[in-house]
Amino acid sequence: MKKISETAAKITALDREAIKSAQARLDSLTKPQASLGRLEELAKQVAGITGKLNPPLKNKVIFTLAADHGIAREGVSAFPQEVTVQMVYNFLRGGAGINVLARHVGARVVVADMGVAGEIQSSKFKAQNFKDKKVDFGTKNFTQQPAMTKDQAIKAICAGIEIFEEELVTGIDIAGTGDMGIANTASSSAIVASITGTAVGDVTGRGTGIDDKALQNKIKLLEQALKLHKPDAKDALDVLSKVGGFEIGGLAGIILAAAAHKVPVVIDGFISGAAALLAYTLCPKAKDYMIAAHCSVERGHRIALEFMGLEPILDLDLRLGEGTGAALAMNIVDAAVKIMNEMATFESAQVSEKNN
Amino acid sequence: MKKISETAAKITALDREAIKSAQARLDSLTKPQASLGRLEELAKQVAGITGKLNPPLKNKVIFTLAADHGIAREGVSAFPQEVTVQMVYNFLRGGAGINVLARHVGARVVVADMGVAGEIQSSKFKAQNFKDKKVDFGTKNFTQQPAMTKDQAIKAICAGIEIFEEELVTGIDIAGTGDMGIANTASSSAIVASITGTAVGDVTGRGTGIDDKALQNKIKLLEQALKLHKPDAKDALDVLSKVGGFEIGGLAGIILAAAAHKVPVVIDGFISGAAALLAYTLCPKAKDYMIAAHCSVERGHRIALEFMGLEPILDLDLRLGEGTGAALAMNIVDAAVKIMNEMATFESAQVSEKNN
Repeated sequence: MKKISETAAKITALDREAIKSAQARLDSLTKPQASLGRLEELAKQVAGITGKLNPPLKNKVIFTLAADHGIAREGVSAFPQEVTVQMVYNFLRGGAGINVLARHVGARVVVADMGVAGEIQSSKFKAQNFKDKKVDFGTKNFTQQPAMTKDQAIKAICAGIEIFEEELVTGIDIAGTGDMGIANTASSSAIVASITGTAVGDVTGRGTGIDDKALQNKIKLLEQALKLHKPDAKDALDVLSKVGGFEIGGLAGIILAAAAHKVPVVIDGFISGAAALLAYTLCPKAKDYMIAAHCSVERGHRIALEFMGLEPILDLDLRLGEGTGAALAMNIVDAAVKIMNEMATFESAQVSEKNN
Repeated sequence: MKKISETAAKITALDREAIKSAQARLDSLTKPQASLGRLEELAKQVAGITGKLNPPLKNKVIFTLAADHGIAREGVSAFPQEVTVQMVYNFLRGGAGINVLARHVGARVVVADMGVAGEIQSSKFKAQNFKDKKVDFGTKNFTQQPAMTKDQAIKAICAGIEIFEEELVTGIDIAGTGDMGIANTASSSAIVASITGTAVGDVTGRGTGIDDKALQNKIKLLEQALKLHKPDAKDALDVLSKVGGFEIGGLAGIILAAAAHKVPVVIDGFISGAAALLAYTLCPKAKDYMIAAHCSVERGHRIALEFMGLEPILDLDLRLGEGTGAALAMNIVDAAVKIMNEMATFESAQVSEKNN
């Protein structure tokens, strides 16, 4: 717990002077003012986060955290639980969607076992980027009992902070979050419903592709679970321990650590959005360091983002997770910073300014 | 005219077999079906266009066409007309927004003088990528008389086809459109109103940033011009000659040529959207080769895209033109094709498939 509060305490307000300088710089460039829209907003945010107008965004890192969920046995997912472990191997071999998109944008993928329901034989792979941070072999089925103990919840968040800080040695100029965990949209819906006070039915979707009947069952189970546990919306550890997941706690830790170290953190989809809500509940200022990558097909995602006042960059009907949306959005952030630094000014290019 | 009809005649329907193969391939990859949303749609479209599942998208080319507009003297733009020529030099020096974003995505920028109101001294620059295709020193003021003659309209479209075909020798795997021309949103609004049958007030915006009074004046002038000329919505040459611009005609030619040569063409913002409407009017099948990059702040843009049934990839509040949105969107198309070709399959990665 000490590590979490120490990390949260390091999170400061954004650098106002840097944002002002960024605005002045953007307004001097050869384009109508604000005509690059969201790109200019992103450039200013990154300036406010890093305190620099020309921050290097060379070290791009996607943190893809995996764990299993006890609630999977209730049939809330279209895929069997064994897929979580299989996909971790797929990440380590470089064959998953996130590997392709991370290569595309020049990011490295750090994969962590936060609590999958099997042992990962990582030594089989040249897996420098694998972290064994297993809290347990999957959470408990939270329709019956709390998903994890309070100690496990703390351990999960601290593991996220550790992962970030270990990687900081290699270098992180911009971070992205990602997840893997069969049934983790169920846990995320429960978190988003608890923290935002929204009805379960309004934040619950089809995940990997369940049918109408399974969706109704998923909603019913989540409603019962929230009635059973009554998570305290103001207490992130209470919510995480009762209905959360190890990877979701870990991602909340990643986000807090990024904010504490003044690194922009690109929030992927629905599961990452639930993690962001936990981080935001622990430390509202962390929100200023977040960049919402995209708007997921999962209906609870927009509600989570709106609760924090975040506007997604992309809207591509993605619902894969893993950090795939974060990778694509990271590339847009990179473009935004280049605009601020590589464009000619009206003066240098001898271009006439606006009429009065 | 012969060149235009010959080019249009070469435009065929998309390759249905390639689209079917692409769908099968996408469904075999280690992700829930369709979970990469728009990326999967783009991958299929590119397969249908090129007839290949693994088309190289190495040669990315943005065509930034510049011209001046007689209507500029009516005060419909926030910037003076000299900016068009100044910005062409900025393009040639590599300092404009499009240069930065093209470098970011690995595209080359081909700049063409389609009819700016001054001579471009291109020999001052190492400007292999400059094309002198000047039709005239700006269009006429179409509030008083037709913007150009029918012959000039044909010449502008043919010049676009030529530019594309000249660059094809160097290689074009994916093309993007871009524009520069003070007052060209006025011309684009008139084109979009004419072809879609929408009221001028609903397709006219602030361009580079005019105030309320100037906007009302712009709308009034365009309404009067359409009343004066009565452009025939079904006749692209009639619309282009009466209220168009040389760069807009050129971009229509680029789009037709791309479709004729089975090259995906990414349509930038509002001005490119007006050019796409002209190309679509000349040959409706050209639409299948278009990819709408983004939704501009200019309100007529969405109306133009909806008329053709195109859904934009990005929504970043851009309103710069030049091809900036096309460059960013091209990178997303590139990602889509990589997804189709670099991801592991369920079989190769030994990942379990969906439950029945």
